[in-house]
Amino acid sequence: MIERYTTETMERIWSDKNKYKVWLDVEIAVCKAWSEKGIIPEDAVKDIENNGTFSVKRINEIENEVHHDVIAFVTNVAENVGSNGRYIHLGLTSSDVIDTASSIMLKQSLEHVISKLESTSKDLFSKAEKYKFLPCVGRTHGVHAEPLTFGLKLLSWYSQLQRDRKRLIAALEEISYGKLSGAVGTYAHCPPDVEKSVCDSLGLNPSPITTQVLQRDRHAQVLSAVSILGCSIERFAVEIRHLQRTEVLEVMEPFGKKQKGSSAMPHKKNPIICERLTGMSRLLRSYSSAAMENIALWHERDISHSSVERIIWPDAFNLIDYMLDKFRNIVKDMVVQEERMKKNLEMTKGLVYSQRVLLQLVEQFSMKREDAYAVVQDNAMRCWDGDNHFLDLLSSDKRLAGLISKEELSSLFDYNYYYRYINEIFDRFLL
Amino acid sequence: MIERYTTETMERIWSDKNKYKVWLDVEIAVCKAWSEKGIIPEDAVKDIENNGTFSVKRINEIENEVHHDVIAFVTNVAENVGSNGRYIHLGLTSSDVIDTASSIMLKQSLEHVISKLESTSKDLFSKAEKYKFLPCVGRTHGVHAEPLTFGLKLLSWYSQLQRDRKRLIAALEEISYGKLSGAVGTYAHCPPDVEKSVCDSLGLNPSPITTQVLQRDRHAQVLSAVSILGCSIERFAVEIRHLQRTEVLEVMEPFGKKQKGSSAMPHKKNPIICERLTGMSRLLRSYSSAAMENIALWHERDISHSSVERIIWPDAFNLIDYMLDKFRNIVKDMVVQEERMKKNLEMTKGLVYSQRVLLQLVEQFSMKREDAYAVVQDNAMRCWDGDNHFLDLLSSDKRLAGLISKEELSSLFDYNYYYRYINEIFDRFLL
Amino acid sequence: MIERYTTETMERIWSDKNKYKVWLDVEIAVCKAWSEKGIIPEDAVKDIENNGTFSVKRINEIENEVHHDVIAFVTNVAENVGSNGRYIHLGLTSSDVIDTASSIMLKQSLEHVISKLESTSKDLFSKAEKYKFLPCVGRTHGVHAEPLTFGLKLLSWYSQLQRDRKRLIAALEEISYGKLSGAVGTYAHCPPDVEKSVCDSLGLNPSPITTQVLQRDRHAQVLSAVSILGCSIERFAVEIRHLQRTEVLEVMEPFGKKQKGSSAMPHKKNPIICERLTGMSRLLRSYSSAAMENIALWHERDISHSSVERIIWPDAFNLIDYMLDKFRNIVKDMVVQEERMKKNLEMTKGLVYSQRVLLQLVEQFSMKREDAYAVVQDNAMRCWDGDNHFLDLLSSDKRLAGLISKEELSSLFDYNYYYRYINEIFDRFLL
Amino acid sequence: MIERYTTETMERIWSDKNKYKVWLDVEIAVCKAWSEKGIIPEDAVKDIENNGTFSVKRINEIENEVHHDVIAFVTNVAENVGSNGRYIHLGLTSSDVIDTASSIMLKQSLEHVISKLESTSKDLFSKAEKYKFLPCVGRTHGVHAEPLTFGLKLLSWYSQLQRDRKRLIAALEEISYGKLSGAVGTYAHCPPDVEKSVCDSLGLNPSPITTQVLQRDRHAQVLSAVSILGCSIERFAVEIRHLQRTEVLEVMEPFGKKQKGSSAMPHKKNPIICERLTGMSRLLRSYSSAAMENIALWHERDISHSSVERIIWPDAFNLIDYMLDKFRNIVKDMVVQEERMKKNLEMTKGLVYSQRVLLQLVEQFSMKREDAYAVVQDNAMRCWDGDNHFLDLLSSDKRLAGLISKEELSSLFDYNYYYRYINEIFDRFLL
Repeated sequence: MIERYTTETMERIWSDKNKYKVWLDVEIAVCKAWSEKGIIPEDAVKDIENNGTFSVKRINEIENEVHHDVIAFVTNVAENVGSNGRYIHLGLTSSDVIDTASSIMLKQSLEHVISKLESTSKDLFSKAEKYKFLPCVGRTHGVHAEPLTFGLKLLSWYSQLQRDRKRLIAALEEISYGKLSGAVGTYAHCPPDVEKSVCDSLGLNPSPITTQVLQRDRHAQVLSAVSILGCSIERFAVEIRHLQRTEVLEVMEPFGKKQKGSSAMPHKKNPIICERLTGMSRLLRSYSSAAMENIALWHERDISHSSVERIIWPDAFNLIDYMLDKFRNIVKDMVVQEERMKKNLEMTKGLVYSQRVLLQLVEQFSMKREDAYAVVQDNAMRCWDGDNHFLDLLSSDKRLAGLISKEELSSLFDYNYYYRYINEIFDRFLL
Repeated sequence: MIERYTTETMERIWSDKNKYKVWLDVEIAVCKAWSEKGIIPEDAVKDIENNGTFSVKRINEIENEVHHDVIAFVTNVAENVGSNGRYIHLGLTSSDVIDTASSIMLKQSLEHVISKLESTSKDLFSKAEKYKFLPCVGRTHGVHAEPLTFGLKLLSWYSQLQRDRKRLIAALEEISYGKLSGAVGTYAHCPPDVEKSVCDSLGLNPSPITTQVLQRDRHAQVLSAVSILGCSIERFAVEIRHLQRTEVLEVMEPFGKKQKGSSAMPHKKNPIICERLTGMSRLLRSYSSAAMENIALWHERDISHSSVERIIWPDAFNLIDYMLDKFRNIVKDMVVQEERMKKNLEMTKGLVYSQRVLLQLVEQFSMKREDAYAVVQDNAMRCWDGDNHFLDLLSSDKRLAGLISKEELSSLFDYNYYYRYINEIFDRFLL
Repeated sequence: MIERYTTETMERIWSDKNKYKVWLDVEIAVCKAWSEKGIIPEDAVKDIENNGTFSVKRINEIENEVHHDVIAFVTNVAENVGSNGRYIHLGLTSSDVIDTASSIMLKQSLEHVISKLESTSKDLFSKAEKYKFLPCVGRTHGVHAEPLTFGLKLLSWYSQLQRDRKRLIAALEEISYGKLSGAVGTYAHCPPDVEKSVCDSLGLNPSPITTQVLQRDRHAQVLSAVSILGCSIERFAVEIRHLQRTEVLEVMEPFGKKQKGSSAMPHKKNPIICERLTGMSRLLRSYSSAAMENIALWHERDISHSSVERIIWPDAFNLIDYMLDKFRNIVKDMVVQEERMKKNLEMTKGLVYSQRVLLQLVEQFSMKREDAYAVVQDNAMRCWDGDNHFLDLLSSDKRLAGLISKEELSSLFDYNYYYRYINEIFDRFLL
Repeated sequence: MIERYTTETMERIWSDKNKYKVWLDVEIAVCKAWSEKGIIPEDAVKDIENNGTFSVKRINEIENEVHHDVIAFVTNVAENVGSNGRYIHLGLTSSDVIDTASSIMLKQSLEHVISKLESTSKDLFSKAEKYKFLPCVGRTHGVHAEPLTFGLKLLSWYSQLQRDRKRLIAALEEISYGKLSGAVGTYAHCPPDVEKSVCDSLGLNPSPITTQVLQRDRHAQVLSAVSILGCSIERFAVEIRHLQRTEVLEVMEPFGKKQKGSSAMPHKKNPIICERLTGMSRLLRSYSSAAMENIALWHERDISHSSVERIIWPDAFNLIDYMLDKFRNIVKDMVVQEERMKKNLEMTKGLVYSQRVLLQLVEQFSMKREDAYAVVQDNAMRCWDGDNHFLDLLSSDKRLAGLISKEELSSLFDYNYYYRYINEIFDRFLL
């Protein structure tokens, strides 16, 4: 990932240093498990624990020669330990270490993302409550539809993030598996009880069966869950971009004091963070597609997944972490133009009440639905095209004369009517 | 979906006829719920239940005029009912019907797929047990690695399908939601208790909050789960394609008596079903990508998802249903060449035992790992390049002289050693 | 492709009937070529030409038995011809027929698309000329930027379609290849001169080398070109969706007299065609991705591409044909609200002239750029937030006092200044 | 891009340093063009040329404050120049610089890739010639089909790379465009002749029309071309992986003297480079999909493409450059096991000649095709299942008795017959 979009946490998790540290954790846990079985002397394990260090630089040197990263790593650690170094990696194949360690790094990443998602959700819920009854127009097809509140809009985001959380937790569960089952999954040189002991000590479950590697449907599920979360954030970001349009201007993403919107046009405040988030979700989608292509490995494994994963795992987690950061900032500091929202709600001169009028004509005044639809649509179209208020047009329509009074009509043009279930909806999200 | 890959069940579920039937179920359930609240007369509801029929042809006629499928549908049903027809669709917006109905159709599809997955899994497990101890070679990178059994290979497939099942069930849970919350999700013209009553009667949960539509992360999760299942089947199909290669020929997909492999080359038996399944997973992956793009709808909805869903929902479910059918046939009737498997296991003249030799030299005969690796690799390379058996080469290597006897070496060349945990692995999958 | 989005031309091209017709064309061309070489008697060829017919139904029957579509086809034609039927398919392998025929069908499709693109482009150019000097605001990031004309906006679409045309023509060139080189590309049973003669007569070039099939990079190029055209149309559709927003309302897609926008809200005119086109481009993108996965076939071919192509070829061409149809309708009949465009241009009270003011202060009045930027940005922000016109704010800013007069300032607020190169730009597109 | 897959050339082209250098080239070219028009004094331009330097560190500092990279860059250069610095960026909007500069960097990258592709192709052609008549078996569906030569296999790769070259050149042509048309493409503050002069001096064409940016179909075409090249390399890599299988072992990718195949199994030589290339093509495909999503920018531009491009441009070009490097190494140093190829060709005991036998029976001995097919298929199936040579089985088939002699049959079992057009095929690629 480029520096610009790298987050501190993900940089740390996906650094070479952390990778080798986790590899070392796995190797030491294996030594201990062998020791419990009496295969490796206790002293040797202690020696390895105390002196088992590595140097990224030295590992790279060795790898340049042997073209194999695990061999390079083990060689380096072993040379630092000395003669007891020979016990390191006992009975293992490289993938035992790499795949178990990758599960740990993916777990670390997911746990971080879930935690950030939770705090972001909390902030979002507060904002939703704050604007619970702030009137705004609901739009479908980009066209004004019916009265809404801004809080309800935000609550729908919150609800979606709750589903994202469930998907991430399911993915976390599925990736919390290690394996030490050897070259083709038979435990030929390292018995199941060693695997169990190692996984226990590392916070993983032993995979009930594997080939040389954990099957990549597990990892694809992780990338899918992350990618769908990215798409959720894209949905919210696109919404804000719409609301920040000059013609709408109901909401703006935060704009720094010294920030410049345009080198050329000094008047501009652009929703560039939200646009950036939109672009990033395209990347996440594409990574999730590559992750799916990784599933059909040949036989007991080929290594074609590896180049893909070296890139998409850190990139996807850096991006989603960055996106959550930025999105949380937006949630917290977005500029909400309450008056403008109300003004926009009135922009169509009452048209947003058309369905209520239609239904009243049918239900209370017993018009045939098709007749009522025709009356309402006719006047709606004249309202669109002219300067008159929808209420005025309706009340002078001869077809309604004697059927419904202007007062009765007028009482239908009230947004509060539309908000009578909002408390009930919010109550569904109480803890 | 083209006829060639259409399954009977999915054709039925995704037919216009079933779609309108489900729409009608929703509309009638709504009428009943209104009736319970005293809004629609009981007689009218009965009239609608009895006479509420539709004709696909007539709906199409009306749609050609009004360019709106739900209006066309409601108009047709209403004209069949007569004057009580005016109660149909009361308080609803089109998406209330469409989205609730789509959830039902997706639920029907998923339940069918899960059920077929379960029966396929059962067959697969039987095969795995049948071949539990059938020796074959395990391959990594396409290169012989260590002894495996064919049953263990199949059990790894079974285990992957179990995870697919979990993903499908999670997706099913997330899609089992209806919504009658109206144009922008406020229940303006249809109260939450009507939604609840309708969803209850249709086997759905009411969505706690929506815009005009159910959010598309739900549907993307369905497509992701289906697509990952497709990738799993691709993994298995690719494996069989490899095993059916002329040089390997351990397994063949079933070949019909009258089937012709090639118009030109009469000798050929090609794994064309498995190749077809491989291609189909490419399609499923691509649909899942389109489904993710559907998530970021504008404001309270735009309808850009609709054209996508009209195609990818039936296509994805037809394909996965077809794939499961074909895969199940393959599982049941695949031709397993037991003798060839054993012969291939011996093809490398003992090289598949190299790790065991290496480990014994280190563990039991206290060689330094690097020295042992060098000895084993040297002889392994000579074995690759020449005609001698690996055992013979090793036993004549001066570096091992006096260290390990030929008998001791010879005892290491035994595949049964590799199978000592197979029962334990299988036991993890007992019910 | 579902009926809803099927076009007449593409339905014909991709019908079974046309497919078998093209296969027959290939087979007959081959017979003639053999005849020229004296291998097949002239009478036999005439017999085949006269009596070589097929029945889709009968082919299906045979295919159900032999599981091989080309064998089924050849059998059916041969049985209709009688004894001379034995000459049909002489020296060929199935892919010789299928791949050569597919090239013809793809060529037919591409030629149709290119032709429709050309007529659409012509209409678009006319509209661009019509609105060459219709003022509207140019927007970046959804925020008003500087004056533009609607004609220039349309001309940019036209220019993009010209590039799409080039890409389609390049793809057409690359797909206009046939092959009769046999099972593995050696011409073992059908010499290069037969291939040459057949390709000549069918309007194709002989591929200089193949495996059993034409390489799938050719076909991926076709799908990429089609998909990028889809993305272009998406760009235009998204633009119209923006312009049709209630708050903007500068352009509307055509709306039928009897069309209903919403079953619930009679006032609505929604850009549903443009939304549909947006969704369709997601499908095209996904097909292009599947087409790329088809490239890496195994050895001299595997058939995994086939299931993919049976679906994405007709689907992609139906969709793009449909999209061009709809887009052309929109181009021709879109509703352009000229007054609203001008009104929107003035909406920001002169802010769209900020860069011009900035530059004049720097260039003509020798302010330091940073100072000028500060002055302009300050007033711009006050203009955003308040009710005053940008010109008034600037002319009362003390920092500009004595530097620039109100008249000088005022003269900068003129959109015609921005249009002085429009004729020059249009002239670049003259034939 | 991670260091592991970064190439020297692409690291340089896509470095911040080169990016700002190219930005500076654009800014200076603009100053010169203004100077030619008498707007900027000659002395000022010289001052800018001499003292216009930048520091990546300083730019980052400023950007952290203003959140705008071009403003940060211009500020830094201007502060280094002093008072004449105010002429820098005159009349420009940021995208004028960024997009023009991006075209240059993409052009540099493409030119490098094309040049490397050409040298790789040359090496490939040499290898194809070297192995022009080396017999091997052609395989379809992974199953032996007919005799081929290894040179012909390689020539098919060469031919595909020629098409890739054409696609890259077409993309290069389409991306060799600059733009200085300002905020919305009207040249409001910088006239077309400045753009022309600048583009001329930078080796670009002026784009005939733009919005604020060059349209992203141009860039999508670049990514598609690169991605399809990646798929081509994947095709070749997958082929080598197949040929390196233990059971086939006809070709091996180069294996270093000190290289270790497996930490656990010392005998292994794995095609890990080819597997890596396979994975990388998945990444390229996914980038091309993201690039297509970038096309539909809003109005005169939104900046959602930017985060995507910051990642996929350098990543895609690093990957393809790396892939070409590795692929070229493989082409040059691959290990070709000639004897094994011949042995494999004979593995099916003559079955690879089945089509020739079939055709001879039909053509020369006037059997009905269906009868001949039956005879040949029967014996072929017995040959598959038993130990007898296909020739022996045929010559003892009663149905052929009296029709064709064993000598006549025997003469059909000759691979040289299949190679009679190979020179003609190669001649098509002569310069």
